[in-house]
Amino acid sequence: MAEEALDAVRKHLLEFPNAARVNKVRVRDPNRLSPCLSSELSVPFTVPHLEGPPTPLQFYRDWVCPNRPCIIRNALHHWPALKKWTFSYLRATVGNTEVSVAVTPDGYADAVCGDRFVMPAERRLPLKAVIDVLEGRAYHPGVLYVQKQCSNLSCELPQLLLDVESHVPWASEALGKMPDAVNFWLGEEAAVTSLHKDHYENLYCVISGEKHFILHPPSDRPFIPHELYTQATYHMSEDGSFKMVDEEAMEKVPWIPLDPVAPDLDRYPLYKQAQPLHCTVKAGEMFYLPALWFHHVRQSHGCIAVNFWYDMEYDLKYSYYQLLDSLSKAMELARTDPV
Amino acid sequence: MAEEALDAVRKHLLEFPNAARVNKVRVRDPNRLSPCLSSELSVPFTVPHLEGPPTPLQFYRDWVCPNRPCIIRNALHHWPALKKWTFSYLRATVGNTEVSVAVTPDGYADAVCGDRFVMPAERRLPLKAVIDVLEGRAYHPGVLYVQKQCSNLSCELPQLLLDVESHVPWASEALGKMPDAVNFWLGEEAAVTSLHKDHYENLYCVISGEKHFILHPPSDRPFIPHELYTQATYHMSEDGSFKMVDEEAMEKVPWIPLDPVAPDLDRYPLYKQAQPLHCTVKAGEMFYLPALWFHHVRQSHGCIAVNFWYDMEYDLKYSYYQLLDSLSKAMELARTDPV
Repeated sequence: MAEEALDAVRKHLLEFPNAARVNKVRVRDPNRLSPCLSSELSVPFTVPHLEGPPTPLQFYRDWVCPNRPCIIRNALHHWPALKKWTFSYLRATVGNTEVSVAVTPDGYADAVCGDRFVMPAERRLPLKAVIDVLEGRAYHPGVLYVQKQCSNLSCELPQLLLDVESHVPWASEALGKMPDAVNFWLGEEAAVTSLHKDHYENLYCVISGEKHFILHPPSDRPFIPHELYTQATYHMSEDGSFKMVDEEAMEKVPWIPLDPVAPDLDRYPLYKQAQPLHCTVKAGEMFYLPALWFHHVRQSHGCIAVNFWYDMEYDLKYSYYQLLDSLSKAMELARTDPV
Repeated sequence: MAEEALDAVRKHLLEFPNAARVNKVRVRDPNRLSPCLSSELSVPFTVPHLEGPPTPLQFYRDWVCPNRPCIIRNALHHWPALKKWTFSYLRATVGNTEVSVAVTPDGYADAVCGDRFVMPAERRLPLKAVIDVLEGRAYHPGVLYVQKQCSNLSCELPQLLLDVESHVPWASEALGKMPDAVNFWLGEEAAVTSLHKDHYENLYCVISGEKHFILHPPSDRPFIPHELYTQATYHMSEDGSFKMVDEEAMEKVPWIPLDPVAPDLDRYPLYKQAQPLHCTVKAGEMFYLPALWFHHVRQSHGCIAVNFWYDMEYDLKYSYYQLLDSLSKAMELARTDPV
């Protein structure tokens, strides 16, 4: 009996990701007992482009509330940064400013490596030292990524704030709040952000180069494996070699072991059913990445970007996601426990 | 093993309604791995009042998107109906107009009775005949309720449209659409609407008298029993007696057998854990009843109301509800099946 009920639960959970991609549309019918519904895609398999910024109401109603990503063109054309932020300009204006740089042997910061969740070594370097490495004028061991997500544009490079807006006015009005963080991103082609999600509404603005995103909506959770990992940090020796050092005082963290670029489908067979979205955000474009969307990010060499993190609403949709997460975990355990 | 996993699923489902009532608030902390959250109530135990209409953006962001009810004051003060719609005015202007009237022996139209889902007898009566009964000047068998939800204000009583607005402008702008239906409600004190939900965003405007709502958010679904019923309709004989006639051609419908006014807790013990909200909507007030909220409605004798039904969005939140519904059903079956 329990087996049967559990099979029903498993079936509903595994059907959910595809059901959630379909947006029902009511066919006008005043019979309130059985409204007649037809279907259209709610989450299309490409990320739509808008040719200009939406109004605050449109942004909230059509994108934030339904938790749908979009790429917005012509939203940054008035930012001086778009024309000014060359490497020579950055070297001249903030070259001597020290910034926090994530350094890893393989480009993967905050990612699963073997049976550990590994965080990058952090070094303080003048920005011009990073630019030298990006331009091939100097060597630094490992892979460099300026990606400290502590509002590092405001904290570490405040001079550059003059070249951008301190927030996105139509988004701040829509969301009824100011951003929690404005981050600056600059790194090598090998620097990769592993598949994860954030508790933020994210407006990601590419200034030069391009970013490549692989995306899954939160509703794909049943297909995406999560495991608990001991945390570790890369330490860099003087000879430029890296070693992983466990953070013994820190609790285990849940993370996604799967690499969507080369998924291990023997180990994670449910991922066969998942349908990732791919998109490229080009210089001058702004990407609305909704809260809780899983994303994996790569970039062109030396890509410069700025992003705004607005705190998400911990509302009914969030509670529903938490339920989906708990049930997915329960099914993962039921699958991996010895029968 | 399956027993254990099923227990975990049951536990998560039964904890969900209370978890969904709590709105987490982030305590500012840039550590993106473990944001620190404190709690506040997302669904309070009373329905909040607004002292005036919200802006379209506020309405969407603060009420529609998070699926939260509110009572809005001073939103109807410009409607001539508020002053004009007395029984004598209705008798004088539309007294001879025939309207559809739901007639039941006990006041329950569209409700479970024994092992049947029973729909009311429908009679065409001039409105003045209904008013005569409401005023005690005439007798009619059973309980009368003008409640035909086919946009009956527009279709049956178009003369009255002059005294109200044909839609709610700030709501139409927020939702990006016009209402699907505008309904007129007039009935006896004994007329009750049984616990159910609608696939509409509902703006319910009380013109005179008052309506009493008992409410459950959609997240309470695991506590609210649903069963499948054969459909039947009341037929009225010439002597004024009623008989139930099965609708043999129609499929069984799922309905809620539970009466929140006097719940049978021996039969539906999970409902002990449910926490209904009660609210009274008074003359001149507009009630925003969000889509998919369960509601049971009573009224003062002769209460007059008009409501606007706006089609809901069949988006991620709807898909999540459908999953919750399927899983609740699976648990109901696991409970009632012989072990």
